[in-house]
Amino acid sequence: MSYDCSWLGDVLPSERVSVGESARESHAGDWGTPEHRRVTPDAVVWPESTAEVAAVLEEANARGVPVTPYAAGTSLEGNATPAFAGVSLDLSRMNEILEIRPDDFQVDVEPGVLGGDVDEAVAEHGLFFPPLPSSGDISTIGGMIANDASGMGTVRYGEVADWVLELEVVLADGSVITTGSKAVKTSSGYNLKNLLVGSEGTLGVVTRATLELSGIPEQVRGGRAIFPTLEDASEAVFDAVRSGVDVAKIELVDRVSAEMANEYLGLDLPDAPMTFLEFHANHGIEEEIDFCRTIFEAHDLERFEIADEEEEMDDLWRARKELAYAVRSYDPDRRPLHPGDVTVPISAYPEIIRYAKELSAEHDLVVPCFGHAGDGNLHYSVLVDPSDADEVARGEQLYGAVVERAIELGGTATGEHGVGQGKRAYLEAEHGAASVEAMRAIKAALDPNDVLNPGKMFPETEGGGRVRLDSGGSSREKR
Amino acid sequence: MSYDCSWLGDVLPSERVSVGESARESHAGDWGTPEHRRVTPDAVVWPESTAEVAAVLEEANARGVPVTPYAAGTSLEGNATPAFAGVSLDLSRMNEILEIRPDDFQVDVEPGVLGGDVDEAVAEHGLFFPPLPSSGDISTIGGMIANDASGMGTVRYGEVADWVLELEVVLADGSVITTGSKAVKTSSGYNLKNLLVGSEGTLGVVTRATLELSGIPEQVRGGRAIFPTLEDASEAVFDAVRSGVDVAKIELVDRVSAEMANEYLGLDLPDAPMTFLEFHANHGIEEEIDFCRTIFEAHDLERFEIADEEEEMDDLWRARKELAYAVRSYDPDRRPLHPGDVTVPISAYPEIIRYAKELSAEHDLVVPCFGHAGDGNLHYSVLVDPSDADEVARGEQLYGAVVERAIELGGTATGEHGVGQGKRAYLEAEHGAASVEAMRAIKAALDPNDVLNPGKMFPETEGGGRVRLDSGGSSREKR
Repeated sequence: MSYDCSWLGDVLPSERVSVGESARESHAGDWGTPEHRRVTPDAVVWPESTAEVAAVLEEANARGVPVTPYAAGTSLEGNATPAFAGVSLDLSRMNEILEIRPDDFQVDVEPGVLGGDVDEAVAEHGLFFPPLPSSGDISTIGGMIANDASGMGTVRYGEVADWVLELEVVLADGSVITTGSKAVKTSSGYNLKNLLVGSEGTLGVVTRATLELSGIPEQVRGGRAIFPTLEDASEAVFDAVRSGVDVAKIELVDRVSAEMANEYLGLDLPDAPMTFLEFHANHGIEEEIDFCRTIFEAHDLERFEIADEEEEMDDLWRARKELAYAVRSYDPDRRPLHPGDVTVPISAYPEIIRYAKELSAEHDLVVPCFGHAGDGNLHYSVLVDPSDADEVARGEQLYGAVVERAIELGGTATGEHGVGQGKRAYLEAEHGAASVEAMRAIKAALDPNDVLNPGKMFPETEGGGRVRLDSGGSSREKR
Repeated sequence: MSYDCSWLGDVLPSERVSVGESARESHAGDWGTPEHRRVTPDAVVWPESTAEVAAVLEEANARGVPVTPYAAGTSLEGNATPAFAGVSLDLSRMNEILEIRPDDFQVDVEPGVLGGDVDEAVAEHGLFFPPLPSSGDISTIGGMIANDASGMGTVRYGEVADWVLELEVVLADGSVITTGSKAVKTSSGYNLKNLLVGSEGTLGVVTRATLELSGIPEQVRGGRAIFPTLEDASEAVFDAVRSGVDVAKIELVDRVSAEMANEYLGLDLPDAPMTFLEFHANHGIEEEIDFCRTIFEAHDLERFEIADEEEEMDDLWRARKELAYAVRSYDPDRRPLHPGDVTVPISAYPEIIRYAKELSAEHDLVVPCFGHAGDGNLHYSVLVDPSDADEVARGEQLYGAVVERAIELGGTATGEHGVGQGKRAYLEAEHGAASVEAMRAIKAALDPNDVLNPGKMFPETEGGGRVRLDSGGSSREKR
């Protein structure tokens, strides 16, 4: 499928449009798009203002041409890459930090700015943006908003949605709205802001965001704890959280992940389950660390190391920080399937981990498990030999079974990566048919021509086409 | 205008339906509905289950009969009372606390349960529901969700939306959805939950909510501070917040409010601007209190009293806690206009207060100012003689001018009371025409017959009728 995009030359200056193969190819996938899902857009545009984004959308909407917002391409579920060609709307040139208002703990940014650049700019005011994902240095604020990203600090500070005050958004027809408020609370009108956060570019394109910031805590300390079994480690995390330990980061890493990190980094840590910890406080950090240690000791804690210096903390954390690379380089014959990202209520965390490990043994597959344990988040990779169709099939089955179990346990198919293309099949299982129907009604109301990032989030339609192409008219009437 | 509601007898058992005058009259207003805005519903129903709510809505939707959710009637902007008669859906019998899961910091409740009853039930597990409004003991969770309420604790803990994990909601056509997740974070699908929170019963009726809870802090202390001028007091609040003082409650009360409270309670406090404070911590509460005092001292602090005991704290706080009653009984000839509820970025807090006081002097009207200062929230009452049309007109003008100034300052017309009927005129000024248009599109998509709480939130249509009555068909096509 391809779309005539020659009209883009009338809408944007020529240096902001490309139909060249290398530009198009570089926008055909993201970090999580497997080879068979790559779709090359017909054109790539790099708008530099809200007005330019609006001009592209207005014309694309009139012509029914799909527009897929893109920035750093670090998404993991195909969220930012086209499902149906059309225009890749690359926001990476809209990367200004517009204004910092330290007295209000606020910063206004464009969507293409990297999270790490925001943190660096506000640090001189003693501030930081707490919900940055692990990829925060190389991913954009716009992408984080689109996926309602979160990360290691979420256990204490919440997710991106909690730190977005106001958004400027271009809707499908090119109209520009501002939603939310620079006041820290409002009860005025529908919360379009939080509807747009996490909507993965299917309802609008964020062109400016006012983010809330937090003061950098006076005390920061961290380290790691080692346990004899994964059950001990996961029960210890659950116990710490339910006891109200005020931890800023609490990450779990299973034995096989620890082994991968040891091998990759040449460390001499035991191949044992461990947690990585960070505490933030203005007062009493020692008491909080002691409180955590006491709880961990009830779970056969083997080693508890807290750094005195920041450098030492980085060292203690290395095995966690480079884990994603370690997983990828572990076995040259085996590649990870798309990364798992389930999240469950904390009381169910030991069970979801136990279940993943049970399936790993049953299917004879290596499944490193780690994640942002404090909020019940489990990342898991299923390593398979891509040339072994049977192994791939078993891997896919395992992957899906963990997602289904998480939903059964009251959890979610995706804690932070979004639905994109990879999790579409689970939307209805998680939310129910009537809820998905309500989501579709909103999509149809705000984007009747299905031009904004079509083919994402919602379960595949029969035949796999866009809604408007199936119905030949308003998607709303035909649904 | 009235609607035939005889069909209700076929939908609900007869003891849950009333067309009697006293039942209907008691549902014609709320705390904030002025006499001239009272509209008596044609019938009142008290459903006792989700299925009964669904049955009422399905039939009402088919017949185009307005349904206005109601519970405690404590809302202040006419949110819960009919604008067009029809059915008052009283949820006060759905008041069960269904399940407490202390390990997950969660409680499942029905919408008609009082906030205070939730707090009491979870206290034995060492937990509390932090965003309760000041009226929390007598208002319902369903109402708080509908208005995205907040209160004194919001400066530290956020608003109701931040503490709602999952909702069961009956939509306009009677279909039942569950939205959100029992996991503390999710990036799956549109955030219908946060769209529904604060939608004032115009998009759906909440029939069950999973709330998140917080651990009761180990240390709680509080008291009050007295300042020579209102400017000193408001600048001190701003300074404390921007300096990152970790305060759990910080309330401002102006001189005339203090005078009213002194008179009403027979206290011998100076008639002077003051702040009321509460601190929560697990460690280091003394250091935090000292930090606050140091900042206040730079603003000519006159008196700083922190209680050692809980009872003493209640005593220090009395002037704030009974202020609403004090305002009402101050001058028998003057009644407050509907309560003001603007919220601005904290840096603009001194300015909005200065402006309200300037107008008070200019119009020669008594305007007590108080509010949840830490999040930039200002409550103000305009006292007028109802029999003096000119004074009422000046009061209304003052009231509106403060709202407009708050919006100019980047704030909101309503921080916690919702739009209801009283703030409809400001929706477009705050959000812009395109944003309101998007809200209307969502309303039309989810409630095409405009049966759910019609006549609220959106600016009045010409002629003041319901959308469907104006257009004679789908509201969507005619808009």
